[in-house]
Amino acid sequence: SHSIDLAVIPGDGIGQEVVAQGLKVLSAVLPQDVKLETEEYDFGAKRYHATGETLTDADLDSLKKHDAILLGAIGDPSVPSGVLERGFLLKLRFAFDHHVNLRPSKLLPGVATPLAGQPEIDFVVVREGTEGPYTGNGGTIRKGTPHEVATEVSVNTAFGVERVVRDAFARAQARPRKKLTLVHKNNVLTFAGHLWTDTFHRVAAEFPEVATDYLHVDAATIFLVTDPARFDVIVTDNLFGDIITDLAAAVSGGIGVAASGNINPSGEFPSMFEPVHGSAPDIAGQGKADPTATVLSVALLLRHLGYEAEAVRVEDAVAADLTERGDAVRTTDEIGDALAARVAS
Amino acid sequence: SHSIDLAVIPGDGIGQEVVAQGLKVLSAVLPQDVKLETEEYDFGAKRYHATGETLTDADLDSLKKHDAILLGAIGDPSVPSGVLERGFLLKLRFAFDHHVNLRPSKLLPGVATPLAGQPEIDFVVVREGTEGPYTGNGGTIRKGTPHEVATEVSVNTAFGVERVVRDAFARAQARPRKKLTLVHKNNVLTFAGHLWTDTFHRVAAEFPEVATDYLHVDAATIFLVTDPARFDVIVTDNLFGDIITDLAAAVSGGIGVAASGNINPSGEFPSMFEPVHGSAPDIAGQGKADPTATVLSVALLLRHLGYEAEAVRVEDAVAADLTERGDAVRTTDEIGDALAARVAS
Ligand SMILES: CC(C)[C@H](C(=O)O)[C@@H](O)C(=O)O
Ligand SMILES: CC(C)[C@H](C(=O)O)[C@@H](O)C(=O)O
Repeated sequence: SHSIDLAVIPGDGIGQEVVAQGLKVLSAVLPQDVKLETEEYDFGAKRYHATGETLTDADLDSLKKHDAILLGAIGDPSVPSGVLERGFLLKLRFAFDHHVNLRPSKLLPGVATPLAGQPEIDFVVVREGTEGPYTGNGGTIRKGTPHEVATEVSVNTAFGVERVVRDAFARAQARPRKKLTLVHKNNVLTFAGHLWTDTFHRVAAEFPEVATDYLHVDAATIFLVTDPARFDVIVTDNLFGDIITDLAAAVSGGIGVAASGNINPSGEFPSMFEPVHGSAPDIAGQGKADPTATVLSVALLLRHLGYEAEAVRVEDAVAADLTERGDAVRTTDEIGDALAARVAS
Repeated sequence: SHSIDLAVIPGDGIGQEVVAQGLKVLSAVLPQDVKLETEEYDFGAKRYHATGETLTDADLDSLKKHDAILLGAIGDPSVPSGVLERGFLLKLRFAFDHHVNLRPSKLLPGVATPLAGQPEIDFVVVREGTEGPYTGNGGTIRKGTPHEVATEVSVNTAFGVERVVRDAFARAQARPRKKLTLVHKNNVLTFAGHLWTDTFHRVAAEFPEVATDYLHVDAATIFLVTDPARFDVIVTDNLFGDIITDLAAAVSGGIGVAASGNINPSGEFPSMFEPVHGSAPDIAGQGKADPTATVLSVALLLRHLGYEAEAVRVEDAVAADLTERGDAVRTTDEIGDALAARVAS
């Protein structure tokens, strides 16, 4: 189609600032004949305080009509922990069946990393997005008493595991190294572990060109700091994926450049693209936030909507900017302008 | 008492080799008038293959009589994943109520770390050892079919959380920096998260000198590589503790020097001390394993049994050895001999 109808959710904290740069770059990179329509939504702490709402059924109906969603960040210290996370972000991921949570990690030459020796890092984590310990199953009895018991139930289905594992194999197959690592903890979480491991081996038979291996999540964190070059594609569950992608972001340029896509591959619902970082209320409104992660999320959005050449142009612009940025301190806006100029030229 | 009655479980792979060095150092450091008695147990893959047993009730009765347990490593690729982990290691931790899983991380000057700039690292993780996702609760229905559902239930009790949180506060109180960080994921795992967070705040009131903070587990992995100096004592659940202590080991000298104690503070059951590393079957029997983690576990064992001066002597010997070892390649035995010589002198 020759138009993109985008839902834009700036959200809280630095969300507003970084999303503005994402849109700037998106406008600059799109061919003249592609019409970009955006509708802004006011989800987040402010609306929650004003109305008590996080995400209503009517909101979901309205969001559903867009081609994709660009999200800044949701979360504010004024809202109790969990309310916006469960009530907005996870509710949306679950409602729109965002089962492929895609998080690439690439360390570009010259970009600062806490690791010694500037290792090669270029992998992508396919994190399951609709199951596991994130389902909200569980509960509390005898709350607030010395006999309280609180449970959290990780729910894993053959349907849910197989589709994300297959997606990850297809992604590995399409990459030059063609390697897929399953990360789990199947020696302790044996019920879920069996399902993940058996599914992984079964689907592997359909992708004979893809080399496979397995790591316990604890061992995976070791390799992420001692030998990140060993990874090409990783597939893992929702919680392990949450943990290792923050670590992956930290070692490959920091949370300021980590992008993600919450993808519904069938297209039944719009996919959502967001930086991995949060709302960072401590630096909000000061022009200090790095919009790079949002701009890279825009690249994932473009790729998802079929604009591959434009996605590559955005990624190349970011790569050039990162390797050339040096020590200069630039504002959020200045970085956005620089990236928009690069993609336009 | 003037004797130590020790259960010794060499286990699989490199377990045998490293435990031998641990005992060597233990014998060398103990005062002449302390009688060391050891009884060796043959748990592990070999016994499992021969008998089908991992740890029987009779075994537990027998182990129970010792003052403490020294474990090398359990695990072998010939045994299906989970069988020895759940059937031996976790069974023992649960049966002997090892609710304080103590894992110190200290980066010594001159010791290799994957992090740039040799940061200061000196913290201890107090990992809950008897609850959380490790309980084995959960199950599978419709196994092997397209409709399989596998669940894992994280069980958290006020009793279990409070005792480990209180233990961690007491440890933080006893350290110069007096800082305790709770690591959880209370914005997603809200049932368990509330229990942990509320308990943490309630117990904090009893320790007004201890500074507290909270990190989501994903953010904690970032700080472990970008600013590990921010940590003093960490308290966390069983699974998060498993993950972050492997990462902590990786950044603070590697898994070859990471010690742990599975502690039953009441003394009702013997505590167990073990290196964090596994059985490393690929290098077993070649004299290549670093026994340092086992020797540091012996230091934790000595401290637990009241031999504080001896514990410090072992730790000082390891520190001196690590900072002076340079690039020389030494065998398992040579490292053990060097450490035994240092503690004896
Ligand atoms: C904010 C939180 C609910 C979220 C998650 O845990 O998925 C975040 O950490 C992420 O990784 O996108
Ligand atoms: C072997 C495994 C069961 C164990 C755990 O998960 O606790 C290990 O990783 C550890 O950290 O001691």
